[in-house]
Amino acid sequence: MPQEPHVALANSEQLAEQSPHQDIYAVIDLGSSSFHMLMVKVVGGSVQVIGRVKRKVRLAAGLNDDLVLSRKAMKRGWECLALFAERLQDIPPENIRIIGTATLRLAKNVQTFLKEAELILGQKVAVISGEDEARIIYQGVAHTSNSDSNRLVIDIGGASTEVIIGAGFNPILLASLNMGCVTFLERYFADDELSEDNFNQAIAYAEQEIHTIAKQYQATGWQLAVGASGTVQAMQEILVAQGKDEVITLSRLEDIMQQALACGRMEQLTITGLSQERKQIFPSGLAILIALFRCLNITGMTLSGGAVREGVLYSMLPQLQHIDVRNRTVKSLMVRYFIDEQHAQRVADMAVELAQQLQSRWDLNKFEGLSILRCSALLHELGLLIEYKNHHHHGAYIINHSDLPGFTRAQQQLVMALVHNHRADVSRDIIARQTMTSVLLTVRLTRILRLAVILSMRRRDEVMPQVNISSKGEALTLKMADGWLEQHPLMRAELEQEQEYQQLAGWEFVFK
Amino acid sequence: MPQEPHVALANSEQLAEQSPHQDIYAVIDLGSSSFHMLMVKVVGGSVQVIGRVKRKVRLAAGLNDDLVLSRKAMKRGWECLALFAERLQDIPPENIRIIGTATLRLAKNVQTFLKEAELILGQKVAVISGEDEARIIYQGVAHTSNSDSNRLVIDIGGASTEVIIGAGFNPILLASLNMGCVTFLERYFADDELSEDNFNQAIAYAEQEIHTIAKQYQATGWQLAVGASGTVQAMQEILVAQGKDEVITLSRLEDIMQQALACGRMEQLTITGLSQERKQIFPSGLAILIALFRCLNITGMTLSGGAVREGVLYSMLPQLQHIDVRNRTVKSLMVRYFIDEQHAQRVADMAVELAQQLQSRWDLNKFEGLSILRCSALLHELGLLIEYKNHHHHGAYIINHSDLPGFTRAQQQLVMALVHNHRADVSRDIIARQTMTSVLLTVRLTRILRLAVILSMRRRDEVMPQVNISSKGEALTLKMADGWLEQHPLMRAELEQEQEYQQLAGWEFVFK
Repeated sequence: MPQEPHVALANSEQLAEQSPHQDIYAVIDLGSSSFHMLMVKVVGGSVQVIGRVKRKVRLAAGLNDDLVLSRKAMKRGWECLALFAERLQDIPPENIRIIGTATLRLAKNVQTFLKEAELILGQKVAVISGEDEARIIYQGVAHTSNSDSNRLVIDIGGASTEVIIGAGFNPILLASLNMGCVTFLERYFADDELSEDNFNQAIAYAEQEIHTIAKQYQATGWQLAVGASGTVQAMQEILVAQGKDEVITLSRLEDIMQQALACGRMEQLTITGLSQERKQIFPSGLAILIALFRCLNITGMTLSGGAVREGVLYSMLPQLQHIDVRNRTVKSLMVRYFIDEQHAQRVADMAVELAQQLQSRWDLNKFEGLSILRCSALLHELGLLIEYKNHHHHGAYIINHSDLPGFTRAQQQLVMALVHNHRADVSRDIIARQTMTSVLLTVRLTRILRLAVILSMRRRDEVMPQVNISSKGEALTLKMADGWLEQHPLMRAELEQEQEYQQLAGWEFVFK
Repeated sequence: MPQEPHVALANSEQLAEQSPHQDIYAVIDLGSSSFHMLMVKVVGGSVQVIGRVKRKVRLAAGLNDDLVLSRKAMKRGWECLALFAERLQDIPPENIRIIGTATLRLAKNVQTFLKEAELILGQKVAVISGEDEARIIYQGVAHTSNSDSNRLVIDIGGASTEVIIGAGFNPILLASLNMGCVTFLERYFADDELSEDNFNQAIAYAEQEIHTIAKQYQATGWQLAVGASGTVQAMQEILVAQGKDEVITLSRLEDIMQQALACGRMEQLTITGLSQERKQIFPSGLAILIALFRCLNITGMTLSGGAVREGVLYSMLPQLQHIDVRNRTVKSLMVRYFIDEQHAQRVADMAVELAQQLQSRWDLNKFEGLSILRCSALLHELGLLIEYKNHHHHGAYIINHSDLPGFTRAQQQLVMALVHNHRADVSRDIIARQTMTSVLLTVRLTRILRLAVILSMRRRDEVMPQVNISSKGEALTLKMADGWLEQHPLMRAELEQEQEYQQLAGWEFVFK
């Protein structure tokens, strides 16, 4: 690494006439634990990541009790910025945002760091207030998660924790609390003991912090709680790895704490589903999360796909601001994968019609079942772009590996299961693997989608059959108009084939 | 099934004002063994299959020695056509082609079949001559396989075998021989014995047929032989399943015949790589193929992706007629997956430059290595549309599952291996699995592509580094201009990381 990193930019490239990438956007986040650079383009109405650079700078570790940032920590930061600068110079300045958060906010000698940092980057760094950070995090969540109602957002950072209530794209309450998983690690787990004492002290201090806002937040209220940090992601990964669903609850967190306590010491910490790289700041993050659940009476929480970087990014991309994030995601996938929109809509309409006919006996709207069914119908031909024969598998692959703002991980798995099973052999394995809802509801939605696809086979609105569908327990009966099937031998052949598929899957289905 | 299948269409839908799908094309092929309907659209400059219907009608089995087609066989055909008709009515007539081949060509009472068939379909059926069939098959191959020079094309059908020599899109010699895998099955393997006698008789008769054209064909000559039928596909599948490469040779065919002889009887026929559904017509097809290899002195053959249906289809799509099929495929993939074309070209140019610098010691052009390297570079970001983190895996998935006209299966596997390994951890397993060429050449191409991607990292032509690369055995040394790396710390960090990846893979790489 160069001794004077800002030299890195003092070359002719900077001075020469440039033709930077007008369509690339970059966000740099100088966090207390890591520095991140994210580079994206907009493709088909949604964000496509084209590059990421991340370095564990551990800035917070260089902040002493007098809030002075050490020269050594600054140097780690500058060296990292020299790397970022090399690519940043190719991006037009108006497409770049660089923000600093808690540690830089707290450091008394922040100007020393910033002066050199801005020289290296050739750009301004915005050190944002806690409230601004909370506001930006909320935007990041609003752009990547679905919600029609008040939502509580939590982001546990290295040196601060943001707590927000908002609705749509509007924050209602904003708070930035002085507690973070890096600072708490040093304060309460410095002895590397996973003891009740350490946990209790950490939780107690966090609770004190949270009490300053708890009343107001509870009075405002929320219908949905989402978490946007690595700590929440780690909890979700642990739950899924341990065979639970994705919803984080207080009792599940306390159970995870018991697992941690049983390990005794930090270096012996092994919990099913906890990755190596998350271990270090895991106990402190867990303590803060437990305190939040207790003080705010949070009943359940899921993970959000976005936080501060996404908030900054979407502030540069106002054209992507849609209230219905899930819908934006589905539309964008339809554009990206050249889906026949009319046909997708036709299948979705038919699926919804069948669902409505069955609704009185089959409770399909639990866990947003109808919305997921509709989205799956709109996306069922995603894999056709790759190849016809196994396009249901390809579509499932695409859904499984895509970032889908507006869907929780479990909802994404359910869409994947429906797309995978929308035709041909039924994979019971895929159905069993998704954790969104019961197998029963998944099977019901799957069967409705399959029939909607077959009934829409001719890809024309004018020739859609009039159908009547009814259930008796799990047995389905599909009735067409008298004589209709005689005039439509291909549809009959397809329904006969479908009957075989359903039979093989153990599902009773008749048609007449 | 209806007794009078043409009734199926006598409904109001046919009479009503229609808004058929202007962008959908259909080809129906009334073959001696099966009837096929293929429906496609054009997406991003290439064909996308949106539907297929296939029924084993076994028309040839209904043709007696007097060349009269039985009523029973006709009925099987008509019932199948009633299925096709249901979807055909939604497609504009000018986008539909229906052809009949050998059995209908031979049947004396073909008019009886056609009259009813055309009533059911509401469309004309073209029963084509053997020479026309050969011409169309050649077009199907020319549109789906790559070749700069004369090529021999073989298509073994149910009741005829077409043999063509052509160059580019122009056939030079056309022949349709009176032998097929269904007719030979009945003539030489009716006793279900897999005996030397049966094989020898079948081969001898086929050789007689081929002798009528052998001289002229050998005088004209060819550089490349491709096969377009299920028989050739079955042979390729067997070779690959038995650990060989994809090239079919006479000695490999004779070896497969020995495996068949060892089974003794048809019902005991099991050969590694031979699928259940191909078994029945496998021995007769094998006998015909052996005769072709012997009489025409074919040294090696690969499989073509297209034949008669593709030939008919592309005749409706003149805009897709490009001499360079491989290039058309790559361009289309770049459009379909929103690839940044300039960047893809930049990486391809850098890869070719590195390859040229290494060419004197590393023989890279065997097996079209340079062309494959260039295509892989153009396609390396295919998976970005799905997600950034593992986009090399997603790109490999897409390539592995796509139809890629202009690439043989093994070439496709090589492109997949290169895309999979273009960044991050090297999978030696993927390299070993492809059968196109030696592991050595694959590794060399992989390493060149990886470096080209890193060196093009900034996505701008103006800032590409001047590099000098050299090899000593398999050790690579990359030299940049003096002082360049000091000014480019991110590139240096990337090259350091790459050095680690290559070391882990067992490859020596230094840079300065």
